[in-house]
Amino acid sequence: MRCEIIAIGTELLLGIIVDSNSAWIGEQLALAGIDSHFQVKVGDNFARIEACIRQALERSDAVICCGGLGPTQDDITRDVIARVMGVQMRRDEAIAGKIRRIFEQRGRVMSANNLLQANIPIGAEPIAQMPGTAPGLVCPVGGKVIYAVPGVPSEMREMFLGTILPDLRRRAGQSSVIKSRVLRTWGMSESSLAEVLEKRFGELDTLGNPTIAFQASGIDGIKVRLVAKCDDEATALRILDAEEALIRGLLGDVIFGVDEQSMEVVVLDQLRRKAMTFAAAEAITGGILSARLSAADPGMEIFRGATVGGEAWKPGSPPGDVRAAAAAAQARAGLGTNIGLAAIAADPREGLASGTVFLSANIDGAEHGSKMTLPPDRPRMREFSVISLLDLLRRALAG
Amino acid sequence: MRCEIIAIGTELLLGIIVDSNSAWIGEQLALAGIDSHFQVKVGDNFARIEACIRQALERSDAVICCGGLGPTQDDITRDVIARVMGVQMRRDEAIAGKIRRIFEQRGRVMSANNLLQANIPIGAEPIAQMPGTAPGLVCPVGGKVIYAVPGVPSEMREMFLGTILPDLRRRAGQSSVIKSRVLRTWGMSESSLAEVLEKRFGELDTLGNPTIAFQASGIDGIKVRLVAKCDDEATALRILDAEEALIRGLLGDVIFGVDEQSMEVVVLDQLRRKAMTFAAAEAITGGILSARLSAADPGMEIFRGATVGGEAWKPGSPPGDVRAAAAAAQARAGLGTNIGLAAIAADPREGLASGTVFLSANIDGAEHGSKMTLPPDRPRMREFSVISLLDLLRRALAG
Repeated sequence: MRCEIIAIGTELLLGIIVDSNSAWIGEQLALAGIDSHFQVKVGDNFARIEACIRQALERSDAVICCGGLGPTQDDITRDVIARVMGVQMRRDEAIAGKIRRIFEQRGRVMSANNLLQANIPIGAEPIAQMPGTAPGLVCPVGGKVIYAVPGVPSEMREMFLGTILPDLRRRAGQSSVIKSRVLRTWGMSESSLAEVLEKRFGELDTLGNPTIAFQASGIDGIKVRLVAKCDDEATALRILDAEEALIRGLLGDVIFGVDEQSMEVVVLDQLRRKAMTFAAAEAITGGILSARLSAADPGMEIFRGATVGGEAWKPGSPPGDVRAAAAAAQARAGLGTNIGLAAIAADPREGLASGTVFLSANIDGAEHGSKMTLPPDRPRMREFSVISLLDLLRRALAG
Repeated sequence: MRCEIIAIGTELLLGIIVDSNSAWIGEQLALAGIDSHFQVKVGDNFARIEACIRQALERSDAVICCGGLGPTQDDITRDVIARVMGVQMRRDEAIAGKIRRIFEQRGRVMSANNLLQANIPIGAEPIAQMPGTAPGLVCPVGGKVIYAVPGVPSEMREMFLGTILPDLRRRAGQSSVIKSRVLRTWGMSESSLAEVLEKRFGELDTLGNPTIAFQASGIDGIKVRLVAKCDDEATALRILDAEEALIRGLLGDVIFGVDEQSMEVVVLDQLRRKAMTFAAAEAITGGILSARLSAADPGMEIFRGATVGGEAWKPGSPPGDVRAAAAAAQARAGLGTNIGLAAIAADPREGLASGTVFLSANIDGAEHGSKMTLPPDRPRMREFSVISLLDLLRRALAG
């Protein structure tokens, strides 16, 4: 089964918007074992969209058209698909009713143009998921199929996962279930992870199921993705559970979270369970830690705040580990929290390797310190300091 | 002149990397008045890359192949282009020498594979700019042309601007010079800007030169881009200067910067000239202001630091404007700076519209306050608070 993606919109060609939809769909297709050999961007031009769809139908079994389903004159994807199908359009009253209700709920006046979105090619089926005013479409053409989804990422994703992916898998004769799980790690380099997992990689190469891949993701750590393909969901989940247990046995507490659990979410959960609060002194991290924590904890119930710069920033005569410990203690005292955190770059006069950072977590008065050598380029040094500092706290709380 | 872009790499189709190169090239081509009707992603597969290049040569005058120029077995762009040109490869000793020198300078051992990068199709010319080990190529095919550039964005951009764009313009018979300038604004909505500039838009529609377009850019403000196309650079710059003066006359101090001048860069410049320092109390901005300022002023010579959360965060009985003013004064006193800044969201109990934010700048003891209604969704409310707060300081310092 081959599926081609066509991203439609002149603003994509002009670079006003970067097409990240195709990348997301491509990742989902790959996880499901569906090939995608070509992904095309084309502008809001009838003949050129038509040419792209016809070519895609020649060289692939399915086409996903993304964008051009809005209510304006530029939005011609529906009409081009009708031409390719060789059919007329029909007004779908159920969709028209949905669109009217969406406008009523938002208290906005609907213009007549908006009902153009309820015109669909005869023979096309609307996609059940419809979070906005643009209906998605499943359009059979001979034994092949064209899907149309809006360019709004959240709407596209809901329709893709809810209807398109199951339909593609059914067409591909895949009765198997594909499940993936991401184990998120921090504290080992990609090459060290590969070394520790080398033997298991060899075994899985022979077994073929599940598969494992790494993805370095900056401040979000290094991700280890497990994918299992089985006859039923229960078996797939059992395989993922067993593989996760095995990998956890090899990597231990290097794994900090699963799937969408970022380091800050994990640490906030630990502290919530312990009814503890924390504050930070941000020197090298320069506010990045606060920006992420205040987004994850908008009420600032657990992360109570931070100081950026100030005393902690200034290079001084005490060695870096002493300054970091003092800054962490001060952060804790200043905001009356259970815990204080601090990350301070080594003073160049200390004569240490560039990229040396001192981390400190003060938990109920007990100091936990760490010295790390991070990449010396400033953006990575800052980001890696944030995740390393939170990781120090995570390990101290767990152990 | 039509130019097609082919982004090459299986990792692009799999969504491991988002193809932002095509968007950047598309923007540059549009600025230069060169059409780009199709942009394609294809994997590291000989036959499929060849099919894409042949099709692009049919429907366009020029093709830019981006990626697949590395030293590994996956990197086959050079070989595919030779096939399309119908020529053999030759070893370019000048390039081989450059590659050897790059490895020597980095103190790294060169493997024999790396010299594969010095093999280029007979008839192709290497691109003069070569910041890495992958040479770019200009490959004539009949009256048309294939360009090859590495996928590394910085290398691609240097080659595109240094060689490809001038070559495309020469081929298009463009002797004209195209210059653009971005005026960065804050304080007026896109529709208000359009209203104020409506008459001038009409005049420019008739004149045809320069052209104007808007681009809303979140925390970076709303950009107004001027593009002039003239016979020579001096005339183009004169037209841009005149248009900028005219637009400044209409928009006044809504324009805060030009081209790459972000709001934080502008404010830091103002303060540097006045030998002043500042500190902030971050409530609604949650550390984002610090993260941006500490990136722009890594020595923290002007931006001395901030507190995030803490007292300023807590809703209290004084009205929001009073709390913001107190927080700004406290930020200034706490770090002994000339200036203190604060941004505080209205307490829900104040009964104000959701999205209401109080801003305060305390300059040498004098308070400058502002109340704004921002989009109530939290990410935009936070980002818009940052640029609005810096803008308040900018205007207070200027006036």
